[in-house]
Parts: sequence; C-alpha cells; structure tokens
Amino acid sequence: MSSPIDVVGHAALDYLFEVEHIASPNESYPITSYEVLFGGGAANIAAAMAQLGGKSRLVAAVGDDFSTSGYEKHLNSLGVDLSLLYHIEGEESTKAFVYTDPNHNQSSYFYWGSSSKLPDMEAPALDFVHLAPSEASFSARVAQKSKFVSFDPGQDLVTYSKEHLVTILDNTDLLFANIHEVKRVKEMTGKSLNDLKKSISTVVVTCDSSGSKIYSKNEKIDIPIVAVKAVDPTGAGDGYRAGFLLAFREGFPVEVCGKIGATVASFEVECVGCQTNLPSWNDMKKRYEENFGVLPL
Amino acid sequence: MSSPIDVVGHAALDYLFEVEHIASPNESYPITSYEVLFGGGAANIAAAMAQLGGKSRLVAAVGDDFSTSGYEKHLNSLGVDLSLLYHIEGEESTKAFVYTDPNHNQSSYFYWGSSSKLPDMEAPALDFVHLAPSEASFSARVAQKSKFVSFDPGQDLVTYSKEHLVTILDNTDLLFANIHEVKRVKEMTGKSLNDLKKSISTVVVTCDSSGSKIYSKNEKIDIPIVAVKAVDPTGAGDGYRAGFLLAFREGFPVEVCGKIGATVASFEVECVGCQTNLPSWNDMKKRYEENFGVLPL
Repeated sequence: MSSPIDVVGHAALDYLFEVEHIASPNESYPITSYEVLFGGGAANIAAAMAQLGGKSRLVAAVGDDFSTSGYEKHLNSLGVDLSLLYHIEGEESTKAFVYTDPNHNQSSYFYWGSSSKLPDMEAPALDFVHLAPSEASFSARVAQKSKFVSFDPGQDLVTYSKEHLVTILDNTDLLFANIHEVKRVKEMTGKSLNDLKKSISTVVVTCDSSGSKIYSKNEKIDIPIVAVKAVDPTGAGDGYRAGFLLAFREGFPVEVCGKIGATVASFEVECVGCQTNLPSWNDMKKRYEENFGVLPL
Repeated sequence: MSSPIDVVGHAALDYLFEVEHIASPNESYPITSYEVLFGGGAANIAAAMAQLGGKSRLVAAVGDDFSTSGYEKHLNSLGVDLSLLYHIEGEESTKAFVYTDPNHNQSSYFYWGSSSKLPDMEAPALDFVHLAPSEASFSARVAQKSKFVSFDPGQDLVTYSKEHLVTILDNTDLLFANIHEVKRVKEMTGKSLNDLKKSISTVVVTCDSSGSKIYSKNEKIDIPIVAVKAVDPTGAGDGYRAGFLLAFREGFPVEVCGKIGATVASFEVECVGCQTNLPSWNDMKKRYEENFGVLPL
C-alpha cells in the first residue's frame, strides 16, 4: 500500500464577516453576518484529496480549539490522516479574520497561533509531500528530508527568508506559483522562471481566471478554467492543487493532472468556504468529461 | 429583602487584537496578540455591582456560546442573578472585534447576534433598572413598565429611533450621558441639557479624564477622576455607573455616589478588560478614603 500524500501547512479557522464598511482607524461598524469556516491551505488540500478518494495526511500545528471547534471531527469524517498533527496545548489554532463590504472590498487579519510553534517541531521525512503556505524553517527541514517535494509558497512567501526559500526550491520537484510569486521569488533569489523550469521538473503557473500553464519536459501546456457560476473564489487554488497532486501521484500525464485540478477548483468557487463543496471522484469525473472529454483511467 | 438592581443590555464577548497595522480595503496584516474577554456594558455593570457586594440581575439576550465560552460560569461565580436572561438557541452571543495598532489606533466591528432578538422578547416590569446601551424597542418597553429607571444610551444611541428615545427619556429618573450623547439627544429630540435637567431628577454628564458633573435638585456637583496609572480606558464608564447606581440605591447622597463611581472606574482602567480588575467594597472604600476622606456609612 502506498504511503499517503502528506500536506504541510495551516489548518485554520476562517472567520468570515460581512460588514457595512471596512473600518478605518477609530471607526466602528456593525457586522451584518458572520460565519466560522474550516480553512487553511494545507487542510483544504488534504480534505479535498480525501473527498476525492485519495489518501492524505495533514502535517500541521493545531491548538486546543481544533477539537472544540469541530474541525478535528470534520477532517476525521472525511478520512484525512491526522496522525502527524502537532497538538500545541494552551495555544489557539491558526485563524483568519476576513471582513468584506457590500462592494466586495476585503480587509483581513491573520493569526499564526499554533503554526508559530512549527520552528520548534521535529520535521518528518516523507515520501511524497506538498508544502502548502506555512512556516519557512519547518518547510525547509521537511524539504531536505523528504523524497518527492511539491511546493506552493503562496501568501506566506513574504515571511520566508532567502535562505529557507533557496533550501526549499533546491529540493523541489513540483512547483506551484502565481505570477506575483514567480516575480517575488526572482527578487529574493535571483532565479527567473526559466531558471526554475531548468531545475524543477514540473512548474505550474496559475493565472486566476485565465487558467494555468504547466511547464514540464520542455513542454508548455495551457489549461483553461472550468467555467461555473462563481460565488467565492477562495479555495479555488487549493482545489486545483488537490486534484493535480492526487492525479500526479497516480501517474496521470501532467495535462490530465491540470485538467483534473481545474475541475476540482470549479467546485470550490461554487460555494462560500474552502471545504464546503468538495467533489467526490465521480462528481469530478462527470464534470471533467463534460469539459475535456473522456478521462483516461 | 430588596429586589436586585436590574441591568438591561449586552453581555458580549470582546475579541481584542493587537495588529501591526489597521487593514484598509484589500490589505491583510498579521495579528501579534489576541485575547477574548468578557464584556458588554450591561454585563460589565452587573458584574462590578456583584463584586462590590450588591445584588445585581442581568437582563440580556445570550447565545449558545454564553455557556461554552465560560461567560455564564464567570458571572455565576461573581453572584450575578442570571434568572432573567433570554437564551437564544442557535444564535451566537453579541460580540465586538477590536483591532489596535502600535499607535493605539483602533478599528472595531460589532456583531449584534443574540441581542438582535430583543425586539421579540417580552419586557419585564422591574423595580429599579439601569438601561445600558441596548436595543431601543426593548429598552423602551422596559422603561414604560418599570418603577425607577436609570438610562445610559451610550454607543447604541445611533441606532435608536426618535420615538423610542423619547419614550425612554419620558420614563427616566436618572440619566448618564457624555457631552456627545447630550448633543445627539438634542439633535434627535430637540431636548437640550436644560430640558433634560428639568424633567429628569438626576442627570450625570461624564467627561472622560475631566471627571463628571451631576445635576440634581438644582445643584451642579463636580466629581473629579481618581487618578491611577491607566492601562486601558475601556470599561471605566461601566465601573462608574456600577458604583454610582449601587450607592444611589443604598441612599447615599449623589455626591458620594459620584465619588464611589469614580473610585470604581479607577480600578477598571488599571487593567485590560472590563471584568478583570473589579474591586470589592473594601477595596473601593480604601481607595475612596485615600482620595475623598471618610466614606459615610
């Protein structure tokens, strides 16, 4: 039996608020609606892979409220392997507080909480790991010890030191980044997209609503998005990576991996929340075939 | 045995965040520290009165997390009478989310939650009630049915209709307001401070660090603040009102009531949080006598 796909990063509680206005300094506004959803990039990906029928294991630091909030029960029920979690006693889980006004402006605050303890944790040696946005020193140690490394720096890139970033990239086999992140990596390390394509066997550049580009074996493959009625773009990237990685691990050609990723992403954008509308393999396959033709099995 | 002092208003959970910057639209900033404290004006006052040895009863609508957050246990342990609470199933308790940057700028968001159900609740007829900031239609009905009415419109004044405000003021025996609220009451109702002084037997105008002015029986009494090392001004007003009301109900002269209020307020500003540094009667008496001389009993 193959080992699970490990996903390193955050398991976060997302506090989503609709407000009349974004409050400037010394302003106060009412909250018109409010919900707490399960999020955090790594957990979103592990959850989506499990729902697709894959074996996923979450490598994250969680606080006391991971259990009391119902998040642990939720991931257990999806079948995500939680045996490599770090439970940080007396600490709150990682959280995001996101305020959205009626014009779709957002302002947000991020609380590292339990994830801030990752530098003190012993890094595991893993067979096939995806490094979602996380704490850089921990990710660097995992990258050095693991066999196959997929990497997505994401929004946490701004917190990475050059040294940690270079260590991770030197051990990366599969890279996911958007154009802003590619630019930022070049500013930090001097490595251009061409340099990355030479040293990393598969590079996926995501371009929001324009789809994604896969660079692999001197080929460039364009993957379109799967158009649906979009309600909330949050989580689309996590869905893409979950689908891509699961298919990649199963040995599908990268073009099919990208199309599976795009299909999973399309489910994510249909609902608010990153783990509220996860497709099964059959749900995904049906929509894949409506858009891309027969899925080769 | 006399009935308790009833306090109508909010029992809220206060989420207090320290952040690197206040986030404008489409900005995101990290939270450097974060705590959840027990607050809400009415609950703050009821808690302070109980800790001073008084009999207080909280009239508020609370959600499911009133119990799970530990708030119910906290108020029970102080001896606050919770028999008139409205428990709203499936609703969150009232909450405030307050972000403070290193320059002490604050932006905040307020979630009415369970308090938004007060319009549907049957109003009780009470002997001696303080109407802290709350939902106006409920407060107006309580004011009409109750014997002695103390009123503090506070930050919720902006949500009051003229009709509800006039109904409450017509039934008010003791008014607390700051100069901004006095001005706003005049704009809404046409009633000036002089008009209010004629129709309400005791009017207390609070002036932050300049202390307070009590207008009663054609007298104007100035009450200074009790100077201490201030850490957080939040809750000072609630402490003032708790001390004032308890002393007033006991029959102390209004000047002594104001000085007791100022003394209780001084404890509130010494710590972060509105229910974290509540004095006992003896604590209060000691500091009172250091500042104002013997407390007549």
